[in-house]
Formats: sequence, structure tokens, C-alpha cells
Amino acid sequence: MESRESFELRETARMEAFSDAIFAFAITLLVLDLRDPTGSGKPLFQGLVDDWQSFFALVTSFVTILIMWMNHHNMFNYVRRIDRRLMLLNGLLFLFVILTPFTTSLVASHITSTDANAAAAVYSGNFLLLAFVWNGLWWYASSGKRLLGNTVTEEQARSISRQYAVAPISYGAALVLSFFSGLASVIVILAVAAFFAITATISD
Amino acid sequence: MESRESFELRETARMEAFSDAIFAFAITLLVLDLRDPTGSGKPLFQGLVDDWQSFFALVTSFVTILIMWMNHHNMFNYVRRIDRRLMLLNGLLFLFVILTPFTTSLVASHITSTDANAAAAVYSGNFLLLAFVWNGLWWYASSGKRLLGNTVTEEQARSISRQYAVAPISYGAALVLSFFSGLASVIVILAVAAFFAITATISD
Amino acid sequence: MESRESFELRETARMEAFSDAIFAFAITLLVLDLRDPTGSGKPLFQGLVDDWQSFFALVTSFVTILIMWMNHHNMFNYVRRIDRRLMLLNGLLFLFVILTPFTTSLVASHITSTDANAAAAVYSGNFLLLAFVWNGLWWYASSGKRLLGNTVTEEQARSISRQYAVAPISYGAALVLSFFSGLASVIVILAVAAFFAITATISD
Amino acid sequence: MESRESFELRETARMEAFSDAIFAFAITLLVLDLRDPTGSGKPLFQGLVDDWQSFFALVTSFVTILIMWMNHHNMFNYVRRIDRRLMLLNGLLFLFVILTPFTTSLVASHITSTDANAAAAVYSGNFLLLAFVWNGLWWYASSGKRLLGNTVTEEQARSISRQYAVAPISYGAALVLSFFSGLASVIVILAVAAFFAITATISD
Repeated sequence: MESRESFELRETARMEAFSDAIFAFAITLLVLDLRDPTGSGKPLFQGLVDDWQSFFALVTSFVTILIMWMNHHNMFNYVRRIDRRLMLLNGLLFLFVILTPFTTSLVASHITSTDANAAAAVYSGNFLLLAFVWNGLWWYASSGKRLLGNTVTEEQARSISRQYAVAPISYGAALVLSFFSGLASVIVILAVAAFFAITATISD
Repeated sequence: MESRESFELRETARMEAFSDAIFAFAITLLVLDLRDPTGSGKPLFQGLVDDWQSFFALVTSFVTILIMWMNHHNMFNYVRRIDRRLMLLNGLLFLFVILTPFTTSLVASHITSTDANAAAAVYSGNFLLLAFVWNGLWWYASSGKRLLGNTVTEEQARSISRQYAVAPISYGAALVLSFFSGLASVIVILAVAAFFAITATISD
Repeated sequence: MESRESFELRETARMEAFSDAIFAFAITLLVLDLRDPTGSGKPLFQGLVDDWQSFFALVTSFVTILIMWMNHHNMFNYVRRIDRRLMLLNGLLFLFVILTPFTTSLVASHITSTDANAAAAVYSGNFLLLAFVWNGLWWYASSGKRLLGNTVTEEQARSISRQYAVAPISYGAALVLSFFSGLASVIVILAVAAFFAITATISD
Repeated sequence: MESRESFELRETARMEAFSDAIFAFAITLLVLDLRDPTGSGKPLFQGLVDDWQSFFALVTSFVTILIMWMNHHNMFNYVRRIDRRLMLLNGLLFLFVILTPFTTSLVASHITSTDANAAAAVYSGNFLLLAFVWNGLWWYASSGKRLLGNTVTEEQARSISRQYAVAPISYGAALVLSFFSGLASVIVILAVAAFFAITATISD
């Protein structure tokens, strides 16, 4: 018979694998947005340069999803048990993860047009909802150390809570800002991505 | 040499991984249905609002597949051995799982048109077939406890059988209903999804 | 330090996972070929019925890939070690696996047209090449029991060799037949699929 | 409590699985570029023959990604620990991996046109960047044996470094060459692929 601990590790591993598969697909699907730009009769090089927004959107989406993957990976070094509610919250999280390539490409196409503010509002709105679910998931797993590993200290948990709280506050600000300046809103969002890239990389 | 038990765990794990990959992939492909709505010259915000049916279909498909994943996951906490017939039945199940995004988008596009009843019939028909295979799979695995884990009791198995039997009965009713009212049929199907979301979440 | 046996199991598991992921994606991508048939102004039901070939192609591809997955799974219950040449052969196998949905949809679109024979030739040609690689892979792994598990007997290995040899012979016949009758060629191929579905299911 | 070694193996396994999923997905997506060629009224066979460039691009991309997978697999037989920086570098690597199908299809479409040199420049440029990241990743993991397994010798590590260094040098040459002859540049790149196919296959 399987021990309780082995069962829990297996369950957690299965949810991690499911999550990783979605991250991996979402990051690979991005390439489907690239098109040979010579259909309109332009020389290839000119076409690729004129289509720089597609490449910018690709790189931005790619890096954003990669950073989310790294942070998700980190979170599940602390969360070592799962239950059904966590599975549901984690699933909900991916609803907003898979929307990221769509909202990024909206921003890339419209940032220089009259729709810049609307595109930035959609973009920051998606990240704001994602951040709410992310914090909710962490709050659910960490409150009373419900689903954390035994070796995680109170101090570590609080430190992570503070770090994650940066996201909804910043994305809320970016959403408000988007009504005045789409570009400023997008810059805030990229700055938050940089912040989480750095914390994900140096926190070893 | 590998023990029988270790072999069985490995086999089951491989089928779970295959199933999870299909779930993860099907759920991520949903995002390909979203399009920038400004092609027709509309402002972005107006276009997104007018295209609410695409988002409704995305969220419905997403949540439906997520709930199926959670219930599949639960089922394989009881089914702890596999054989070839189970692999075939499980494969057949996914034929209807991957059709879900297609039938959902049919319903979303046609629910307000004269094709509402036809779309609801296709939608409920797909779920009815899925429910038949799901129940057949469970029946095959659980009868005489053929492929269940050693610790599963008769009472647990019967309780799950009763719970699963709700699906074909309700979807059958939804199919009949679809000939009279597409909308009523769809509401029944969403209610069944809610039922399974709740049982999947509270049965810890 | 990791033992040799544990290393080999891990390596084999990783190649199985890679293979399973390709099977899972290929089987899920099939759904992208389905389209809402009402664009041309037809009622939904009529459109779906007229488009029966798309559904036939989907089901055929789905079942074919599922049977290949089951047989691949079976083969790797015997092949318990891998080396680089096997990885290359296994990779080559998937070149023909991922072509299956494409050749199936060609057959489905053209079986009633003047291109029926050409489509059947492409279809059977793809399966013939797949069968050559499959037999080559098995021959490489099994000759001198190079990469088989310790518990596999000579008799078992020979029995599997005989079973696999059915494929290139039948697909060769189907290819020849396709020059005279596309339909007859396709029927042979579906009969081979049924043969392997049965052997994969009953050989427990 | 989990031991340090078990934790490290699990972390490495998770990154391998994530990498494999992207490889498997990228290789399967290639098939989406194939189209039924009879739309333009040509007979099927003629259409497929005229569309040989699509098949050539498919096979080239497929084999290239397969070889990268095998080499990545090999590298992670030496790299047995990961940290956050390695995760970031590995993620960056996949940005260029998923671009490979796109740049390959550009080359296939334009190698006989006036855009041949531009297409070859993009193609070799992508591989050059990929090679830089690959060597950077290896350099980071191997310098001072930072993340290598305990049993890897200095001599083995140096031998791999030399082998990997072939890539940026050759791709740099291919990039320079592309300004004079697109075809010559592509031939160099295919020769490098053959080199890595051979070293990946014989180095057992």
C-alpha cells in the first residue's frame, strides 16, 4: 500500500505536470502568429522589419509566460500538498495564462493607434485578474500553512506573500493608467515582469 | 527485476500523463478561436463586446474541460491498474473530449439564431456519448473491483457509480429537450457541469 | 550516485514521455480541421451532414493514432533500454506519425473524386514508410536482445516480430492496389488497423 | 523530509519534462503547414509534387528539432542540477527553438527567389543566436562544474565544450556567407545539422 506522503507527492507532481504542459503549449503556440510577410509583394527583409510588432509581441509573450512558469515552479517548491480547491484555483489561473498571448498581440497591434488605451486596458485587466487568482491560490495554500511543505517557515511564507502582493497593486495601477495613456500602462506592466524575473532569478 | 506493483504504477502513470497532455493541449487550443475584432473597422472595445460569444464559449469550454480533468484525476485515484481494454476505452473518451471545444463554439455561434436547437442537439449529443464512454470505463474498471486499488471499498465504488450515472441521464434529457428549446437544453448541460464541479471540489 | 539500472529506466521513461506527448498533440490537433459549416448559408444540421467526410477523417485519424500509441506503449514494455540510434529511429517514426492526419484528410476529401487513387497511394505510402521504420526500430532493439528487458524470452520476441511483419506486407499490397482502386486500398488499410487494434487489446 | 539529492533530481526532471513538451509540440505543429494542394484545380499528385518545398521544409525542421532534442537530452545527462539562472537560459533557448519552423519555412519558400539571401540570413541568424544561448547555458552549468553530475570528469566537460563550439563558429560563417549566396549558407547549416546528428548518435 502507498504511504500518505508518497500519494501526496504523486498528486502534486501530476498537477505540476499538467501546469507545465499548458505553459509549454501556450509558449509554443505563439509561433503560429508569425507569417511570411512577402504575400503583399514586399521584399522579405523589408516585410520582416515592417512586421516588427509581431516579433515584439512574440518576445514579450514568451518572456512573460516563461517568468510565470518560473514563479509557478517556485511556488510549488513551497506548496507540497494539493486538494480539490487548489486544483480548481490552479485551473482558473491558466484561464488567464492562456489569454496572455491574445491580449499581448492586441497591444502590439494597437499601441500606435487610437485604440492604444483600450488595448492597454484589456492587457492590464487580464494581468490584474491573473494576479488576483495567483494571490488567492497562494493565500489558500499558505493560510495556516494548509498545504505548505513541513520545512517552510512562517517568515518565508510571509515574505512570499509580500512579494506576490506587488502584482495586483501594480496591475491595478496599470489599469487605471490605461485610461490616460496606453503606453505608460504597458511600461508599468513590463516593469512588473522585470521585477518578477529578477526575484525569480536571484531568490536561490 | 521490476516488481509487479511497480510495473502497474508505472503503466497507470503513463496513461495518466497521456490523458493529462490531451486535456492540457485541448484547453490551450481554445485560445486560437480568439481574433482581433478590429478587422471590420470597429473600435477595439466595441469589437470585443460584440464578440462576447467567443469569450463565453472560451470560458465555458475551459471550465468544462477543467472539470473533466479534475474528475478524471479523481477516478484514477481509485483505478490503480490498467489493461489494454481500459486504454482503448480511455482513448475513446478523448475522442469526445477533444470535440467539446468544437461543439461549444457551435452553440455559442448559433444560440441566438434559427439553428439554436440543432446546435444544442449536437452539443448535448456529444456530452451524452462522452458520458456513456465515461460510465462504461468506470463500469469496466470497477465491476468485481477489476482494476481498482486495494483500499477502495465496495461502498465507495457504488457511491461513485451513482454519481457518474447522473451524467447520461441528464444529457439524455438535454438531448430530448434540445428539439423543443436549445436554450433550455444548454442550461441543463451547464447545470450538470456545475454539479460535477461541486462534487469534484467538495469530495475531499 | 545513480545506479546503471535506475539511469536506464529514467532514460527510457523520458523517451516514452516525449513519444506520448507527440501522440497526444497529434491526436488533439485533429480537431482544428473541423469548421462551422454554416458559413455557406446552409442550415447547421444539413451542413454537418454534408461535411461527413471531415468527421470520418477525424475518427479514422483518431483511432489510427490511438492504436499506434497502444502498440508503441506495448513495444516499450519489452524495450527497456534505449541508446542514441534507437532515439533517432523513434524520432523518424514520428515523422510519419504526424503525417497521418494530413494523409487521412487527403483521402477523406478525394475518395469520391478522380483523385481517389492518388490519395490512396499517398495514404498507403505513408503507412508503408511508417511500417518500415517501426519494424526497423523493433529489429534494432530486439536482435540479440540488444535493448530488451531481461525477462523477455526469445519466443516472445519472435512472436512480436511476426506480428509486426504483417504491416509492411499489407501496406505494400495496399500501395500496389491503390493504382487500380483507391477504395480497395483504403479498405485494406482500415483492415490492418482493425488487426492491430485487436492484437493490442487481446494480448494482455 | 525529502533529501537534497531527491529534490535536485525532481527539479531537473521537471525542467526536462517542460523542455521535452516544447520540443514535442514544436515538432508536431510542423504538420499544420501542409495543405491540400488541389484547391487551385490541379490534380492531387501534381499538386503535391509542385509543393515539394513544403515537404522539404517539414522534413528539415523535423530533423533539426529532433537533433536538438537529442543533444539537449545528452546535455542533461551531464547537467544534473538546476538553478534559476539555468532555468532562464534554458527558457531563452526555446525562444529560438520555436522560431526554427518559421525560419525554415521562410527559406523553403524563398530559396529559389530573389529573396534567397535574405531568407538564408534570417535562417542562419536564428541558429547563430540559438548556438550562443546553447553555449552560454553549457558554459554556465559546466564552469567550475557548477551544475554537473558528480561523476562527470573535467576531460568530458572540455570535450563537450569543444564540440558545442563548432555551432556558433559555423553559423557565424553561414551568416556571412548568406550575403553572397543563400544556397551556400543553407548547405553549411545542413552540414552542421549532420555533424550534430552524427555526434549525438555515435557518442554512446
